[in-house]
Amino acid sequence: MKEVSELIDYRSDIKVVDATLRDGGLVNDFYFPDEFVKDLYIANQKAGVDYMEFGYKASKELFDVDKFGKWKFCNEDDIRAVVGDNNTDLKIAVMADVGRCDYKNDIIEKKNSAIDLIRIATYIHTIPEAVDMIEDAYKKGYQTSCNIMAVSNARESELSAALDILGKTPVDVFYVVDSFGSLYPEQIARLDDIYLNFAAKYGKKVGIHAHNNLQLAFANTVESVGIGVDWLDATYSSMGRGAGNCAMELLLGFLRNPKYEVYPVLQFIEKHINKLREDGVVWGYDLQYLLTGLLNQHPRTAIQFTKEGRKDYAEFYKEIVTDD
Amino acid sequence: MKEVSELIDYRSDIKVVDATLRDGGLVNDFYFPDEFVKDLYIANQKAGVDYMEFGYKASKELFDVDKFGKWKFCNEDDIRAVVGDNNTDLKIAVMADVGRCDYKNDIIEKKNSAIDLIRIATYIHTIPEAVDMIEDAYKKGYQTSCNIMAVSNARESELSAALDILGKTPVDVFYVVDSFGSLYPEQIARLDDIYLNFAAKYGKKVGIHAHNNLQLAFANTVESVGIGVDWLDATYSSMGRGAGNCAMELLLGFLRNPKYEVYPVLQFIEKHINKLREDGVVWGYDLQYLLTGLLNQHPRTAIQFTKEGRKDYAEFYKEIVTDD
Repeated sequence: MKEVSELIDYRSDIKVVDATLRDGGLVNDFYFPDEFVKDLYIANQKAGVDYMEFGYKASKELFDVDKFGKWKFCNEDDIRAVVGDNNTDLKIAVMADVGRCDYKNDIIEKKNSAIDLIRIATYIHTIPEAVDMIEDAYKKGYQTSCNIMAVSNARESELSAALDILGKTPVDVFYVVDSFGSLYPEQIARLDDIYLNFAAKYGKKVGIHAHNNLQLAFANTVESVGIGVDWLDATYSSMGRGAGNCAMELLLGFLRNPKYEVYPVLQFIEKHINKLREDGVVWGYDLQYLLTGLLNQHPRTAIQFTKEGRKDYAEFYKEIVTDD
Repeated sequence: MKEVSELIDYRSDIKVVDATLRDGGLVNDFYFPDEFVKDLYIANQKAGVDYMEFGYKASKELFDVDKFGKWKFCNEDDIRAVVGDNNTDLKIAVMADVGRCDYKNDIIEKKNSAIDLIRIATYIHTIPEAVDMIEDAYKKGYQTSCNIMAVSNARESELSAALDILGKTPVDVFYVVDSFGSLYPEQIARLDDIYLNFAAKYGKKVGIHAHNNLQLAFANTVESVGIGVDWLDATYSSMGRGAGNCAMELLLGFLRNPKYEVYPVLQFIEKHINKLREDGVVWGYDLQYLLTGLLNQHPRTAIQFTKEGRKDYAEFYKEIVTDD
């Protein structure tokens, strides 16, 4: 059991990352109104959020720019149109997926960019390319994190080998990513512990990116904070793929550092998120996501079930159990 | 950190209590269709649930029987119409509130009743009457639990004094009740620890009844299981007052004992809970409940906000912050 002092005081090393445009963009193909993005940038500043992730740096060879909103590509000019020279305390992040980013060309020198942090998303088996991307971004002058996805399917021995490789790169943060939202707090604690040991060895930080399939995204984030994880991903109203993410309003209500304010988040949700939902954009906890989470499966079948407006949960369960 | 074996194996002492009719009845004034109740009784048997709480034993002096459904009063005949002689492994529970139950008259001798367990709900300051109710029910032949409500507002010294008094009664189970849904897992763990110490001293069991204001009802229940709490309250689709309770479908998916099955719960939800929601019965996590939870307030203002169909969360926050 933790000391009472740890429940009352706070760690100033905590960094809150708003991933609303990036993970939320996965449910509306990144078509956010310009006012939404501008207001989110302002709300994040008022709320004391540390990083705002604008979206992906996706390859224009692989993805048709006419089929997605601009935040799938995060052109420098589009970011600049929102943040100007970004003379604020809020830092700017983008995500670059291994195998889906033309990073040599599309990520420019930091001195010419408003972006501060490149978040490199990888699977265990693509770590070598992730290392190349980390080194490329580091040489260009960026902070970097490495988000190891689908970690609930990784063996501990492979994960340790991956973290040992990453430890030797200039990456700043290792991220625990519960892509399937299938992990319980006790399991997250065990994973955090592995990451934190390698982080201590190599002088890195650890982050957590949780999904809400089992209504545990916030609980797993709280559990991680208590263990020493410093970088915390959240999204407004949990907006994100499938069951969504740790809710920013829950996280900022929990964190004790007086720099964090929940009120600007409420204002933003009232103005923009309600509207999105009324317009038919759907995300968040529901039984179909619970079931893929329980079975430690990718949520793609549940997303399809949602798109089709199905409510026959029992039939869906039979489908995915027998498919496993 | 717990041993891996504890994550894989299970404790056979666990008891799952379905509180759907009782806590859920608070959102529809206990008007459940007869088929709902009958199917719930069957679903609970199939799912391996240990106790089914049918509702309250509310005083007919204090509450008008014409203004509530029958499960607010749980007449013996109404229960018998569903369960007959209840020749099943599923035990029957009702709740009796201190100050709101004519227990001397309305709770009959166990030998004439289908009810197995009387759950006595009390505040710290009404413990003496709770003791009288426990002794009355015990003498009549029932199992009893004592649910100490609003515990997030109780001082540890008073709570310890209350548990020491209750320990000397014939009560079987002490219940941790997070009425305002305001407690984080670490805080729940500290409370559990106090209860478990008194339980060990007096040979009692400990239970947990969580609310979902901070999306932590399930997480707090999981945390409690890990610490040694054996009696676990849950409701189908979290149906319960305000933000609702720990979801039965999450809990049964988590518990490792093969006697528990999630599939009958899915079938029930598909058939009955979707219908309730379509008919306009409203419960579950939303920002107004998050806010009363954060502020450790009774959810009554949030329930009113919900009833009025308000969505001006920021204004509501200002109202309840300045009201505190």
